[in-house]
Amino acid sequence: MYTLWHHCQIATMEGGRYQLIADGAMLTQGSTLFWVGRREDLPNFPVAQRVDLQGRLVTPGLVDCHSHAVFGGDRAREFEMRLEGASYAEIAAAGGGIASTVNATRQASEEQLLESARRRVAALCRDGVTTLEVKSGYGLDLPNERKMLRIVRKLSESLPLTLRSTCLAAHAVPVEYQGRADAWIDYICESLLPELHQAGLVDAVDAFCEHLAFSPDQVERVFLTAHRLGLPVKLHAEQLSLQHGAALAARYQALSADHLEYLCEEDIALMARQKTVAVLLPGAFYFLREKQLPPVELLRQYQIPIALASDLNPGTSPVLSLRLMMNMACTLFRMTPEEALAGVTINGAKALGLDEVCGSLEAGKEASFVAWDIQHPAELSYWLGGSLSKQVIYQGEEVYRD
Amino acid sequence: MYTLWHHCQIATMEGGRYQLIADGAMLTQGSTLFWVGRREDLPNFPVAQRVDLQGRLVTPGLVDCHSHAVFGGDRAREFEMRLEGASYAEIAAAGGGIASTVNATRQASEEQLLESARRRVAALCRDGVTTLEVKSGYGLDLPNERKMLRIVRKLSESLPLTLRSTCLAAHAVPVEYQGRADAWIDYICESLLPELHQAGLVDAVDAFCEHLAFSPDQVERVFLTAHRLGLPVKLHAEQLSLQHGAALAARYQALSADHLEYLCEEDIALMARQKTVAVLLPGAFYFLREKQLPPVELLRQYQIPIALASDLNPGTSPVLSLRLMMNMACTLFRMTPEEALAGVTINGAKALGLDEVCGSLEAGKEASFVAWDIQHPAELSYWLGGSLSKQVIYQGEEVYRD
Ligand SMILES: [Zn+2]
Ligand SMILES: [Zn+2]
Repeated sequence: MYTLWHHCQIATMEGGRYQLIADGAMLTQGSTLFWVGRREDLPNFPVAQRVDLQGRLVTPGLVDCHSHAVFGGDRAREFEMRLEGASYAEIAAAGGGIASTVNATRQASEEQLLESARRRVAALCRDGVTTLEVKSGYGLDLPNERKMLRIVRKLSESLPLTLRSTCLAAHAVPVEYQGRADAWIDYICESLLPELHQAGLVDAVDAFCEHLAFSPDQVERVFLTAHRLGLPVKLHAEQLSLQHGAALAARYQALSADHLEYLCEEDIALMARQKTVAVLLPGAFYFLREKQLPPVELLRQYQIPIALASDLNPGTSPVLSLRLMMNMACTLFRMTPEEALAGVTINGAKALGLDEVCGSLEAGKEASFVAWDIQHPAELSYWLGGSLSKQVIYQGEEVYRD
Repeated sequence: MYTLWHHCQIATMEGGRYQLIADGAMLTQGSTLFWVGRREDLPNFPVAQRVDLQGRLVTPGLVDCHSHAVFGGDRAREFEMRLEGASYAEIAAAGGGIASTVNATRQASEEQLLESARRRVAALCRDGVTTLEVKSGYGLDLPNERKMLRIVRKLSESLPLTLRSTCLAAHAVPVEYQGRADAWIDYICESLLPELHQAGLVDAVDAFCEHLAFSPDQVERVFLTAHRLGLPVKLHAEQLSLQHGAALAARYQALSADHLEYLCEEDIALMARQKTVAVLLPGAFYFLREKQLPPVELLRQYQIPIALASDLNPGTSPVLSLRLMMNMACTLFRMTPEEALAGVTINGAKALGLDEVCGSLEAGKEASFVAWDIQHPAELSYWLGGSLSKQVIYQGEEVYRD
């Protein structure tokens, strides 16, 4: 028996385009989308339930493919001190920077971390997100990286969305390894990553390739370990300088290379050959007041799928709305609203290796979608902030309405 | 009999500072705030009802002192066409620009306009706004300016907030007066404004002083008429160029001068003498990718109250969240979170001449406040987008919770 969803426009996002159906309908069976099309082409199947979507515009549930949503404390006071004129030294003395988040994350109990993450992820869900990736990387030792990844698993028990966990132990050098970055990488490769993988806590492996974090050589050792364990990789690359991390990611068939402000054309060509997704993070670009724009026009020329994500994190992107990232991608990066919507649906799904499951409204995929109270999909990028009225359907069930 | 609100922190915003009370309490009587202070100092009054605010942080209800929330159509397709590479000529040919909003506003019925405005204003309310100014200016003839201002009055019947209406007939030259701007100003002064004032629809008078709109001389004639009618004035000034509109506004004891990117020091000194509020509009600055920053440091030196507003309008600031404007004021204009909160509370109230009534939590003022699920008021500016959990209390009654 099927549920019929009717009286709606549908932007299926198949192939990364709106593919707008003016008078659309969908049949779902349990958590699966069984049929999508024009109402007049509706096949004659037994319908147990009919849902009138009241003329709303339906898109796939949004996919946020890059977040650091689990962390202790926040950095609101650091943000305030900086704006009140405090120097970096004063902020460091007051315990600011990433070290403060690592400390707060280590000190927090699993319950505290879960509750604070749950509130942030719930905000993303209310914004239309039905699939979310979350990284570790503020534990920086085995028990605390494990604690973070367990919380990612637990979030899916209390919230209506699909979660993917990424081990980002190579996020920074922990204080215990200060000046011994290579030893920390050795430990990740020999002990930490195999153990967390064994515990079933890791869906993918990430690292931070930057002059103030890890070199391409160090990242490559992490990638080799991930490959040996059968885990896909991804990379924070070329955010603040050109390190050729994206090329390294492409050579290791990474799911995605992320940030990419300083990416060069040669590496774009490599990404194109290896089908690496480019994940752009306009929230961090905005928050840090960066000037170097990612090479959007070249990414288009090489037909590289561009995803957008919140990068939700306390230091450089305290973002609670993926739809706001669509506006910033358009306003700041000059992407089109159609590219922006593809970036938070089908291309986000590709960046997680989930494009067979979600990211577009096609028969056989998950029945996760949002019915927005708007006339045209460009409005999703156009309206700046706030909460658009919507119904969120996750795997066939309405989970939120406002 | 009184209602006691307890178990909360309170940022009263008295004098434009947080004035944080760690363990606070409030007594309200009907729609009025009767007492605010430390719980331990609570006077012994008969309490009919106790409300536990569960440790939340209370701020005054937010005041959005500059919006164009009533309009027909939207400009999402124009936004999209521009990003898809359409030229200004092509957009004009497709009916874009302010003329398209004037046409859509004229063509819309009062019911349609009311319903679309109601949805946008409801989004602002859900974000914490309890006082909102709305301007006319897309009608540009007597019946349609009247229609817009009637809708502002009607919005307060169906939504829990205080509305102030502003006549902005001098927003643009209507097509019927093309090339005859002075004749349009004559008509405003001789007929339109006196009639709308007579109908009780006008709380204040605004104009757009810019090389592509009206000259200071033309604006001055509108201001003279407003003064004659006993109506306060305000002005869109120095947004795209220095026209000395702010100086003119100050000379006419304007409530505020708004935008102000190109404001000069001499005119700041004049504003300081006349106590004109500076209203900054970071949404339009961001959306138009402006480079010229408003002179925040000079405004501070001259101790001019700085308010922030959404400027909600379809062409240059489709903003549905005043809290997002706080983040943009901090990130883009380098204001502090405390200044940002003062900008959307006490200084917003000053910009509406309502600072005796709302904008801070002081005995005798309106009992309108927001209880936010945060630890520190800096978080209101820090979190980027999304909806923070909150309870909104308007004139003593809870009107929204998420
Ligand atoms: Zn990141
Ligand atoms: Zn305006």
